[in-house]
Amino acid sequence: MSPDAPTVTADGVTVDVRVRYAETDRMGVVYHANYLVWCEIGRTAFLRAHAESYAHLETDGVVLAVSEASLRYHAGARYDEVVRVDTRLTALRSRLMRFEYVLTRLETGERLVTASTTLVSLDPNGRTAALPPAVRAVLAPLVRHG
Amino acid sequence: MSPDAPTVTADGVTVDVRVRYAETDRMGVVYHANYLVWCEIGRTAFLRAHAESYAHLETDGVVLAVSEASLRYHAGARYDEVVRVDTRLTALRSRLMRFEYVLTRLETGERLVTASTTLVSLDPNGRTAALPPAVRAVLAPLVRHG
Amino acid sequence: MSPDAPTVTADGVTVDVRVRYAETDRMGVVYHANYLVWCEIGRTAFLRAHAESYAHLETDGVVLAVSEASLRYHAGARYDEVVRVDTRLTALRSRLMRFEYVLTRLETGERLVTASTTLVSLDPNGRTAALPPAVRAVLAPLVRHG
Amino acid sequence: MSPDAPTVTADGVTVDVRVRYAETDRMGVVYHANYLVWCEIGRTAFLRAHAESYAHLETDGVVLAVSEASLRYHAGARYDEVVRVDTRLTALRSRLMRFEYVLTRLETGERLVTASTTLVSLDPNGRTAALPPAVRAVLAPLVRHG
Repeated sequence: MSPDAPTVTADGVTVDVRVRYAETDRMGVVYHANYLVWCEIGRTAFLRAHAESYAHLETDGVVLAVSEASLRYHAGARYDEVVRVDTRLTALRSRLMRFEYVLTRLETGERLVTASTTLVSLDPNGRTAALPPAVRAVLAPLVRHG
Repeated sequence: MSPDAPTVTADGVTVDVRVRYAETDRMGVVYHANYLVWCEIGRTAFLRAHAESYAHLETDGVVLAVSEASLRYHAGARYDEVVRVDTRLTALRSRLMRFEYVLTRLETGERLVTASTTLVSLDPNGRTAALPPAVRAVLAPLVRHG
Repeated sequence: MSPDAPTVTADGVTVDVRVRYAETDRMGVVYHANYLVWCEIGRTAFLRAHAESYAHLETDGVVLAVSEASLRYHAGARYDEVVRVDTRLTALRSRLMRFEYVLTRLETGERLVTASTTLVSLDPNGRTAALPPAVRAVLAPLVRHG
Repeated sequence: MSPDAPTVTADGVTVDVRVRYAETDRMGVVYHANYLVWCEIGRTAFLRAHAESYAHLETDGVVLAVSEASLRYHAGARYDEVVRVDTRLTALRSRLMRFEYVLTRLETGERLVTASTTLVSLDPNGRTAALPPAVRAVLAPLVRHG
């Protein structure tokens, strides 16, 4: 019953989303900007599963802002399909983390989108700031390269 | 693992959604138009649970288009909260069905939004058309008044 | 060059929006929740044209929150079309204002959606509060009934 | 009065968009996925200004699908601000075109986002197909490198 329930794997976190009507466009597939929304769901699920949740991070005064994003579109998801979002943490530095995502059509395993985003940590005034040491300690063993 | 997994109740269908970052606005709560998206998720879950799915309906050449919507906003959902969407079918006629929705904050039970939408069935040319008898037969016992 | 440039009319404010690809759905028309976004553009243009802008209102600590919305859908707008949004103020009370909207296809004048929204004014703590007298004084002569 | 009215420059096309409330998130700035929507508005304005509009391209059976996108976020746009979108065509090949975008805060000239998208032309069956020669002939002189 819990929505967006993530599965923790050896490499990261897996979460499934069902395509909403609002997310399709008149080409009949998901509008390309919406995959970034699902990447964020994967990233949030990762942080919620492995460390303090993103909401908690913000309570501590740390904000993660997307500084870079890139996406490669291979095929389009369609209404009512379930899309699997596999999220890995691929870099972690003092003020920065990088996530990579593979989105596949659950039913067939077809690759839909591969993507990556870089996030910087900001203090409440919007200046880059070091991630809390406790958060880095939790995340460091989870980094996967390549 | 299946997202948007509905629970069938005596009165309708219940589905939970987790608030996405993209759905909030700068007031810190969910942007008011997004509740209509969740109502559609409830309605789709209802149709998927009780009858042919909406996707299947469209395969049969029947399209359901929203002809009326009304919403009352009581309180705002916040990021990362789980919102429960209870959906009931409250009217069913030859070319029309009406759904009512109660959206609550799962953790506290607080009422967030009450809403209703009326849908008309259209043929592939966009003209109103009778619902398929098989669909009406399945849905008729599910109508709840008041 | 100024986007969303409103025209002030005897009855209210008119603003045109061009349908974005992101706003369509797989039925080929605008997804029904998006009309509420355009109503807000009309309402904001109204407030910007006639009184302090909504942004300014918030600077003064007054927040307008949507408490009710209702929409009737007559026809669907399509990609790249221009939609005319006519906004009127139809009620103004101490803590509340109501706007009505008529959305038409600019090229043909065909009516697409009629809608209304009620807004309540909130203080920074989210409690209903009286609108600033200066704002009410500016808006009172602009109310149109029926 | 015409929304999204583009200005043709020596290097490309400029269009201004005003930030909508729906586009902000609870951080108070525009949600990062929405910049892709504005890039598409710039790209569509480019095609509409210089060649057959995107809508017309589709009428001819040619669909442009985004195959790659990348964005760098420098600063966040806020509600009610006007964002200038400068769009250039930076590559044109038989089945592919690439656009680059610079988004700035109009009032200050501050750079908000730089982005690029690659589009592939598809036939009605979704297979990559050559762009119509007439479209390539119009666009070829407009390519700007570096």
